[in-house]
Amino acid sequence: MNTIGLTGTDPVKRVYIQGAYQTHFGELWDKSFRDLLVEAAQGALEDAQVAPQEIEAVLVGSMLAERIVDQGHLGAFLSSELGLNCPAVRIEAACASGGLAVREGFLSLQSGSYETVLVAGVEKMTDACSLEVTSGLMGATNGEEGLVGFTFPSIYALMAQSYRDKYGLADKELAAVAVKNHYHGSLNLKAQYNHEITLEKALASDYICEPLRLFDCSGITDGAAAVVLSRKKAKVRILGSGVATDSLSLAKRKKFYSIEATKGAMEKALRVSRVKREEIDLAEVHDCFTIAEMLALEDLGFYSPGRGKRAAVKKETYFNGRLPINTSGGLKACGHPVGATGVKQIVEVVTQLRGEAGERQVKEAKIGLCHNVGGSGGTAVVHILARE
Amino acid sequence: MNTIGLTGTDPVKRVYIQGAYQTHFGELWDKSFRDLLVEAAQGALEDAQVAPQEIEAVLVGSMLAERIVDQGHLGAFLSSELGLNCPAVRIEAACASGGLAVREGFLSLQSGSYETVLVAGVEKMTDACSLEVTSGLMGATNGEEGLVGFTFPSIYALMAQSYRDKYGLADKELAAVAVKNHYHGSLNLKAQYNHEITLEKALASDYICEPLRLFDCSGITDGAAAVVLSRKKAKVRILGSGVATDSLSLAKRKKFYSIEATKGAMEKALRVSRVKREEIDLAEVHDCFTIAEMLALEDLGFYSPGRGKRAAVKKETYFNGRLPINTSGGLKACGHPVGATGVKQIVEVVTQLRGEAGERQVKEAKIGLCHNVGGSGGTAVVHILARE
Repeated sequence: MNTIGLTGTDPVKRVYIQGAYQTHFGELWDKSFRDLLVEAAQGALEDAQVAPQEIEAVLVGSMLAERIVDQGHLGAFLSSELGLNCPAVRIEAACASGGLAVREGFLSLQSGSYETVLVAGVEKMTDACSLEVTSGLMGATNGEEGLVGFTFPSIYALMAQSYRDKYGLADKELAAVAVKNHYHGSLNLKAQYNHEITLEKALASDYICEPLRLFDCSGITDGAAAVVLSRKKAKVRILGSGVATDSLSLAKRKKFYSIEATKGAMEKALRVSRVKREEIDLAEVHDCFTIAEMLALEDLGFYSPGRGKRAAVKKETYFNGRLPINTSGGLKACGHPVGATGVKQIVEVVTQLRGEAGERQVKEAKIGLCHNVGGSGGTAVVHILARE
Repeated sequence: MNTIGLTGTDPVKRVYIQGAYQTHFGELWDKSFRDLLVEAAQGALEDAQVAPQEIEAVLVGSMLAERIVDQGHLGAFLSSELGLNCPAVRIEAACASGGLAVREGFLSLQSGSYETVLVAGVEKMTDACSLEVTSGLMGATNGEEGLVGFTFPSIYALMAQSYRDKYGLADKELAAVAVKNHYHGSLNLKAQYNHEITLEKALASDYICEPLRLFDCSGITDGAAAVVLSRKKAKVRILGSGVATDSLSLAKRKKFYSIEATKGAMEKALRVSRVKREEIDLAEVHDCFTIAEMLALEDLGFYSPGRGKRAAVKKETYFNGRLPINTSGGLKACGHPVGATGVKQIVEVVTQLRGEAGERQVKEAKIGLCHNVGGSGGTAVVHILARE
């Protein structure tokens, strides 16, 4: 496969992140879908100091808007709300919609078609009953899993059980991930859960699906995030991007204790970015459940198989540890408005690479990674960003 | 705006259509969403004589899959069904989802990231009650229009009324478009309505919303279409592509008797393709309603304002006329599975440019155009294709 064009190292194909913005994440009863999307877009434009008229294309990542807020046609929707009439499109890849929207924006700049594009991710999840949200989310799998009664907590619980069978896994190892991400969330005013939790509290919470307890699961969240991508030089550059896909259902996978798509996406992203894994200073990874963070650490190659479960326990993945993971609080504590998550990860890494992360700032962060997953691993997308 | 990169005239950025396939369009009770999507993809691969493993990315255009068949994550869905694990994404822009998916595939090839990609469009509309379909389609507008009782027939009826106020418009002029497109459909075995109608029959049908009668409206359709795009030389090349957007609701438009997004998309497509309007030999245009074909002819600049209404009456737009329009039967007679339509238009023009259109073959067709609209004109996308 020819992936040379994907590299951000060719000077004529360099793509920079000029602006980045995240709305508050949470149960935002007083904000509409439109409010969130427009706030994120305008925030990114302001951060980039770019006038709306300079935007040549708009890409919007969202998964559930048509089901939950009866709104499709999101590219033109946002373009029109900003007073533009530029090319615009919506990108969907389940919970990886935001990451794929950034990727499509990156490719469109590399095609030479545009100088500057706006990429937004958005989800308004609290405007429907939880049954509708759960049912909508199951659209990320193939039909079979929903029909036999699976929901995402039970899918990831099965993955956790399989991991436990293979490597051993204690509830407190899972809980340690939640404690760490809540700690990071406590340092992020935009996080849905802007407070710490204790290990005891996490372990005292009910099982949703064994071995995943309440505090092992990300919540239902409203929120949006946006970035302005440009061929004009800015403080942060996208070095490269990798995507891989796999079967939507677990039934067709060889093993449940790792996500092949993550491995494939990481391999491509490293290759086109011409970066060594060891050079990465921090990462936002897709921790929709605590087990998912462990799998990500292993599948991205930061930890060897079976060793990812000890990372949070040993405090290596705290913002001031050896390899800071999910300094935003992750999906777990910052929140998981599905279509927005992949874009928010980029916003967090940009914030860190610019040295603007305040209390949770990672020291001397030069290269950061974002890892966004759709479904139970049907899609994975990895971006590698660097401070210029 | 820099649109240089959009041109297909730069040799290093040339993009060819290697394969094209359309499923039968209709009320396909015996086929599932998956069946249609996979049939289209495999058909295009076979036509291209490309093995699935040569596909480096998959793009799927669809509007309603999450609402009607509870299936999202369509990129990975198709990639997985084909036994691939390549980058994959779903593109949505209401009824222009298919056209935008082709456009995104075109850009991704121009970015240099891939040699060969598969683009599919699909919709399964008959698996839900018509209220659900109507309600889903209204997601193409902003919320206001649905709330006050508009549906798409009434939106386009308002546009027809406005056109009539401005230029005069007889029911039989509208009906002449339906008669022409049914005639073309009668020559296309894949068309939903593979039969002719008389002017009398069209004029005797009930009003759905005055002045639009039953035969002025496209139907509810199941179907899929796919193309293989490649940087390797093939018989048909994409010369260029243009997209423009506008407000989703009519209320924010200055006039209802033309679609500004079509004008903007056409202007860009002509510029980047370096083609003169007069060189275009045939076009598939977005005739979701008969009035929409008239608007398209004028907004694309083929007819001056107020003159498009006479084109079908004068038989100029028949396959053997001066400017053949909708030789497939158009949305009206071939059918309108919304996410598939934009891809099907490309398939028809490829078929014509290759000289494989049988009874409805346009003589000496060298350059063809596809025009796909989202909603009531919130998005328009134009592609210009040429025989090599």
